[in-house]
Amino acid sequence: MSEESMTLIVFSDDLDRALAAFNLANTGASMGMDVTMFFTFWGLGVIKKERVGRGKKSPMQFMMGKMKRGSAKRLKMSQMNMLGMGTGIMKSLMKKYRMPSLEEGIALAKEQGVKFVACTTSMALMGLSREDFIDEVDEVAGAATYMGLATEGKVNLFI
Amino acid sequence: MSEESMTLIVFSDDLDRALAAFNLANTGASMGMDVTMFFTFWGLGVIKKERVGRGKKSPMQFMMGKMKRGSAKRLKMSQMNMLGMGTGIMKSLMKKYRMPSLEEGIALAKEQGVKFVACTTSMALMGLSREDFIDEVDEVAGAATYMGLATEGKVNLFI
Amino acid sequence: MSEESMTLIVFSDDLDRALAAFNLANTGASMGMDVTMFFTFWGLGVIKKERVGRGKKSPMQFMMGKMKRGSAKRLKMSQMNMLGMGTGIMKSLMKKYRMPSLEEGIALAKEQGVKFVACTTSMALMGLSREDFIDEVDEVAGAATYMGLATEGKVNLFI
Repeated sequence: MSEESMTLIVFSDDLDRALAAFNLANTGASMGMDVTMFFTFWGLGVIKKERVGRGKKSPMQFMMGKMKRGSAKRLKMSQMNMLGMGTGIMKSLMKKYRMPSLEEGIALAKEQGVKFVACTTSMALMGLSREDFIDEVDEVAGAATYMGLATEGKVNLFI
Repeated sequence: MSEESMTLIVFSDDLDRALAAFNLANTGASMGMDVTMFFTFWGLGVIKKERVGRGKKSPMQFMMGKMKRGSAKRLKMSQMNMLGMGTGIMKSLMKKYRMPSLEEGIALAKEQGVKFVACTTSMALMGLSREDFIDEVDEVAGAATYMGLATEGKVNLFI
Repeated sequence: MSEESMTLIVFSDDLDRALAAFNLANTGASMGMDVTMFFTFWGLGVIKKERVGRGKKSPMQFMMGKMKRGSAKRLKMSQMNMLGMGTGIMKSLMKKYRMPSLEEGIALAKEQGVKFVACTTSMALMGLSREDFIDEVDEVAGAATYMGLATEGKVNLFI
C-alpha cells in the first residue's frame, strides 16, 4: 500500500453524485493514491449490469429491482431530472466539454487501479449476487472490510 | 480513549441513511473503535421519542414538528417510498434476512458504547429539548464539541 | 498552514446542507483551524451572485441556469419546502433564535479566513465563470487542488 489512501462510500445512484465520486477517485489515483470505492445501498445501481436476470430473487426483491433499474447508463440526476430532459442536457454538455461520461469514468478508474467493492449486506437485501455486477467489481465484502481500510485512509468520504 | 475513533454526523432522517450510519457505527464499535454519532437537523428525527409533547414550542416550531413526525419507527426511505410501500418491502426483506432493524441498531449501538450527541443549534431551531429524545442520548452539545472529537478521529463521515 | 486543517466539499444547494457546511466551517475557523470549502456541482449555487448575466453560455447552459437560479438568498430546504412555506418558517425561526442566516454565515466565514474554492469542472459544465460568483470566492480550481488539501486535512467531509 502506498503512503496515501482514500476510501469513498458510494451510497447513492444519482448520476451527479456518481460522477463526483469517480472524479475524486480518478484524481486521487492519478496522483498515486490507493483508492477504494465501496458501493452500498442505492449505490449498487452504479455497478449493476445493464441486464440483470431474475436469478433467485424473492418476489419482493424482484419488485425492488424492477422499480429501480440501475446500471451506469441509466442513472438520473438528483435534481432537475424533469423526465430525463435535465439528465440529457447534462450528458450533452459533458460530451461537448469533453468530460468523461460515467461509463468512461468507470473504465478510467479500473485502468488506474481503483478498487471496486460491493457491500454484501445491501446485496442480500436487494437479492443481488456477484453475477449481477459489471466485471470491474473486484470484491464483495462487508462493513468490517471498509472500516479496516478507512482507518488507514487519509481521506474518507461518504458521497 | 482508544487509539482509533470515528465520528458520524447524522444529518438526514431517511431510513436508508440512518441504517447505513448505524451499520458503520456498530461495525466500528465491534472492532474496538470509539464511536460518536452527532444527530443534527433532520437527523434529530432518528432519536426523537415516538410521542413528543407540545412543550414550550412556538406555533411555528409546533407546525414544523407536526409536518415532520420523526422517531426511528416512522422513518421512510429517501427513494422509492411510494406511500410507504417501498419502506414496507425493505423492512420485510430486512426481517427475512435477519438484519437488525433501526430500533435494534440503536439498541446494539448503546450496548457497544457508541455515544449519541444531539446538536443544540438544531434543537433550538426545532423547539426540541432533551426530554423529546430517547433515553439513549448521552449528551446535548454544539459544533465545537463535534470539531474537538473529529480532529482526533481517524474516520469522520457526514451521512 | 496551522497544524489542523479541514476541507468541506459543498455539493448541494439545499439551504439546510449549506447552513450545516457554514456552521462547521465557522466553528472550525473559530477554533484556529485552516478551513477550505470546495463548491462543486449544485453547490456552486451557494456562491452565485444574485444576478448572473447571459455571458457566453450556450443555449443549453442558459436553460440549465434558468431552471436553477441559485444564490445564497434563494436556496430552499431539501425537505418540507412546500412551495417555500417550510423555508420561510425556518428562516423566521433562525432570526428569532439569533442564528446567522446563510448570508451572515458566508460573511463570518470570510472574516475568519475560510477559503472558498469553486470547482472548474462544474463551472465549465454549467457555463459559469469567475464573474458569476460573489467576490468572496478566493480561487477557481479542480479536483487535484482539493486532493492536495484533503490529504493534509484532519477532517474532510462531503456535505
